[in-house]
Amino acid sequence: MPSYTAPVKDLQFVLHDLLKVSQSDIPGYSDLEAEFTSAVLEEAGKLTSEVLAPLNAVGDTEGCTLENGVVRTPTGFKEAFDQVREGGWTGLDMPEEFGGQGMPYVMGTAVGEMFSASNQAFTMYQGLTHGAASAILAHGTDDQKATYLPKMVSCEWTGTMNLTEPHCGTDLGMMRTKAVPNGDGSYQVTGQKIFISAGEHEMSDNIIHLVLAKIQGGPEGIKGVSLFIVPKFMVNEDGTPGARNGVTCGKIEEKMGIHGNSTCVMNYDGATGFLLGEEHKGMRAMFTMMNEARIGVGMQGVAQAAVAYENALFYAKDRLQGRAVTGAENPDGPADPLIVHPDIRRSLMDQKSFVEGARAFMLWGSHLIDSSHRKGDEAAEGLVSLMTPVIKGFLTDEGYDMTVQAQQVYGGHGYIEEWGMSQFTRDARIAMIYEGANGVQALDLVGRKLASDGGKHVMAFFDLVKNFIKENEGNETLKKDFLDPLKAASKDLQAAGMFFMQNGMKDPNAALSGSNDFMHLFGHVCLGLMWAQMAKAAHEAFEAGASDEEFYRTKITTGRYYMAHRLPATGLHLARINSGADTVMALDAANF
Amino acid sequence: MPSYTAPVKDLQFVLHDLLKVSQSDIPGYSDLEAEFTSAVLEEAGKLTSEVLAPLNAVGDTEGCTLENGVVRTPTGFKEAFDQVREGGWTGLDMPEEFGGQGMPYVMGTAVGEMFSASNQAFTMYQGLTHGAASAILAHGTDDQKATYLPKMVSCEWTGTMNLTEPHCGTDLGMMRTKAVPNGDGSYQVTGQKIFISAGEHEMSDNIIHLVLAKIQGGPEGIKGVSLFIVPKFMVNEDGTPGARNGVTCGKIEEKMGIHGNSTCVMNYDGATGFLLGEEHKGMRAMFTMMNEARIGVGMQGVAQAAVAYENALFYAKDRLQGRAVTGAENPDGPADPLIVHPDIRRSLMDQKSFVEGARAFMLWGSHLIDSSHRKGDEAAEGLVSLMTPVIKGFLTDEGYDMTVQAQQVYGGHGYIEEWGMSQFTRDARIAMIYEGANGVQALDLVGRKLASDGGKHVMAFFDLVKNFIKENEGNETLKKDFLDPLKAASKDLQAAGMFFMQNGMKDPNAALSGSNDFMHLFGHVCLGLMWAQMAKAAHEAFEAGASDEEFYRTKITTGRYYMAHRLPATGLHLARINSGADTVMALDAANF
Repeated sequence: MPSYTAPVKDLQFVLHDLLKVSQSDIPGYSDLEAEFTSAVLEEAGKLTSEVLAPLNAVGDTEGCTLENGVVRTPTGFKEAFDQVREGGWTGLDMPEEFGGQGMPYVMGTAVGEMFSASNQAFTMYQGLTHGAASAILAHGTDDQKATYLPKMVSCEWTGTMNLTEPHCGTDLGMMRTKAVPNGDGSYQVTGQKIFISAGEHEMSDNIIHLVLAKIQGGPEGIKGVSLFIVPKFMVNEDGTPGARNGVTCGKIEEKMGIHGNSTCVMNYDGATGFLLGEEHKGMRAMFTMMNEARIGVGMQGVAQAAVAYENALFYAKDRLQGRAVTGAENPDGPADPLIVHPDIRRSLMDQKSFVEGARAFMLWGSHLIDSSHRKGDEAAEGLVSLMTPVIKGFLTDEGYDMTVQAQQVYGGHGYIEEWGMSQFTRDARIAMIYEGANGVQALDLVGRKLASDGGKHVMAFFDLVKNFIKENEGNETLKKDFLDPLKAASKDLQAAGMFFMQNGMKDPNAALSGSNDFMHLFGHVCLGLMWAQMAKAAHEAFEAGASDEEFYRTKITTGRYYMAHRLPATGLHLARINSGADTVMALDAANF
Repeated sequence: MPSYTAPVKDLQFVLHDLLKVSQSDIPGYSDLEAEFTSAVLEEAGKLTSEVLAPLNAVGDTEGCTLENGVVRTPTGFKEAFDQVREGGWTGLDMPEEFGGQGMPYVMGTAVGEMFSASNQAFTMYQGLTHGAASAILAHGTDDQKATYLPKMVSCEWTGTMNLTEPHCGTDLGMMRTKAVPNGDGSYQVTGQKIFISAGEHEMSDNIIHLVLAKIQGGPEGIKGVSLFIVPKFMVNEDGTPGARNGVTCGKIEEKMGIHGNSTCVMNYDGATGFLLGEEHKGMRAMFTMMNEARIGVGMQGVAQAAVAYENALFYAKDRLQGRAVTGAENPDGPADPLIVHPDIRRSLMDQKSFVEGARAFMLWGSHLIDSSHRKGDEAAEGLVSLMTPVIKGFLTDEGYDMTVQAQQVYGGHGYIEEWGMSQFTRDARIAMIYEGANGVQALDLVGRKLASDGGKHVMAFFDLVKNFIKENEGNETLKKDFLDPLKAASKDLQAAGMFFMQNGMKDPNAALSGSNDFMHLFGHVCLGLMWAQMAKAAHEAFEAGASDEEFYRTKITTGRYYMAHRLPATGLHLARINSGADTVMALDAANF
């Protein structure tokens, strides 16, 4: 069975050597001294390794079951959820006034990686609650906040997000769920929602469903969609759960993975709902949380890749098979460990350099979110908004590929469920789909974000890369291995942007045909930038006499691998983009 | 639930327009007139669509169960197996003298694609039997052939291959299974074998296990391995199954996919075995069938991609979601079909151009096998031997990626088992692992095949590409879209080969670090060659006045897509190869 050890040292490196969080003027960041963050991460590491990771396979094997409307979660989930609640982990980055710990989002992401890596299906119960609570925090009335938030921050009550219907997922304008005013300010919500994660279960005293629905008589399409709070149990005057509301779980889906999470068909039969935010502004309310939610999913891609890599590495050191081509390295044993073989190393380096670069990228994004929310930094807001589809789409696509590579290291055993590597692959698969399928992320990037505010944000990104290269071009240790490849990759990105500018208006299909490639091209440049910055930080650390020189040297070597072996992908993506829409759109649908 | 329609027209195109099989002087090929192959393929298409495909999900859901030593296969498998037997499909390319139909291997591959696409887990029962029968055909005594082959060709008896043990898969020299001579020419075989596909079941009257074991007192390591026939039931004088032999199924593995096939732990407790071939030459006996077996697995990669693509295409035309960016294409409906969206098309074109190019590649490889076996063509033998790891490794890696892309077209529904797309992904995953994990294929290609016979075969491949380009460079319709990109890609392949020649001896790690990239680079050039040749064939067909002009024009457009969008991957693989072993091998294992 796989194990999990939280990457505390690597997270500390990103927080302190790279992002230098405690030196930032973002409100709340001055608390993030290395000792403090280390204590938080160590504690989270213990909980996730010892409590959540052992339940990961249990959740996969048992799944959730629905009987007489009651959903049973896997053995041990409820007890573990109590432990998570008691430790205060569910409100880590929620406001103190509602019982949270008020830490920055960057800490939420760092701890979130551990939770997701150790047990993604389990972690989704609190993740969805966090999302629903954030929506109430952003759009709720004082009364709504007082009623729901303290219970949701502590996860005594959990939450869900209800968007998809059987006939519409991405295209929510077609939704049929209706809300009819009761005349007392509340509504009767009726319709069917599908793919509702954590939709029904017995781990919390109440479930607060956030439901998108159309108010009867409102505008057609997406402009007539409003957001409603629909509690499983109506809330009594004294704040306790009361009568059962008209919402039931009709079915639990059998999925490829995340079996420990109950993915429900939810039926609303005249359920009482309360408007959250303004009438017909439901999509806008959803969108305010979009960046965080999507970065959270990108984080899941990194997390599954990280835990899969950790186990692949263990196996590569442990399993004896064949001999090194340059001569036996374990001459007294029957064979050498797998890790002596170059192609196994190539795979491990692909995984390692992705995981560590991606971890820096998602934490940088989270740091920008903090800068935007806590400091009102509009440049940060623009930049993270631009990069959000990249963090979500690129990191989950690549994260999935890395779980497949990790599984491959196990040979035949990678295909046997008992060994646990298949679960990482199956669990990681969902992150490419939910919270906006990755094709939708690519469309968002090229169709909206790239040109928003006259292309200001993408120019800011290019400046950032350019300035970093310029500031460090005298640094001989960085130049050849890091700055030159970064410059070349960034040129590819600019050329792609130029292609879209020149062709996007006259042939929008040409731009959109290359959207997936652009997302990946952008992602590689971001990871290249992260690695260049991390290499610089590592150099500075060991020049300043850091005790663990090997750790920093390893960072630099890993970065060099990324720059040499992964970053050249930008050229391929550019070639695909430049070939345009011609052959993509040429066939009539009937001729496929 | 997914459906399956056999690609008869596309297979006919490859057999007749591209390979022109009936004009070949390979013995047996003159029978392969278009009408004849069409009749065979239509019939196989009917059987696979109507009988095997509907059982695919059944097999996935029910799996196999072991109770008191008896393995139960999924509902309907036994009846379907009877139908397959009665149709004579199990012996399609086996010799007529043993009850087969004596068709060339190329027909076995064409029909095999349909069987695998419609139900891979089911098809493995006959596939393993075919492999075991081929070994007996190649190495058995006349007596052994007479005893086993008629029953195995008809699949009244099935077969298995027993190589892997718990502590060794790739490195078979470490195996512990022992064979002790009984003094009467037979042996007592004792040991445990794992991952034995179709190891135990009740669909046949006997199971003929081929087992690798070490004869006591023989040479150490891989040189002391011999191959044995170990029947489940001893065979009576009259050829009927008799007493039960000492071999039992200890466990059925829970796997990521191919649930309908019983993957068994097989325990041999002094089971009676009969030497197949020579003492201590067991590996050599296995290797004679290796090319066919590996091409067969490459075919599975193509097959899963093909059926997944077929269903993704259906969904993309059927599912209404969003509007075309250039204006509504289904203005009377609530939305446009998915296929109007450029990124969906990009994905479908990736899939389509891979599937059709890969199909041509595997059939070309099979045609070379026929030329080698039936005509004694040594050049063909050398070429197919060189390309076998590419067919196995590249086509299963890419085939898997295509099933993931096909699944993605379904959005959230792709993750729900009921829709069937997850099964294609899970079933396709095994082909990257078994019959030599793809890293082993890459090692075989770079470490053995590339330099074998002084590099003669790879030079022959380059000549083939060069000559094709030269012969057609006056063809303006081919030049820009096909010949130029093929020339560039082939240059990348030569440069990579040059890198290995220059570095392979002095730094073998440098060559092997790039082995996986070389396999993929080679694969892309092969598919580029296939598409250039298919484009030429399509041009010739419609210039000759072929009735279905759209079909041929579509082939050319699909080929143009491959050349423009997929083939540029060669540059990335070359860059990775050229960056060498430096960063791949730099870290001490302890520093990972």
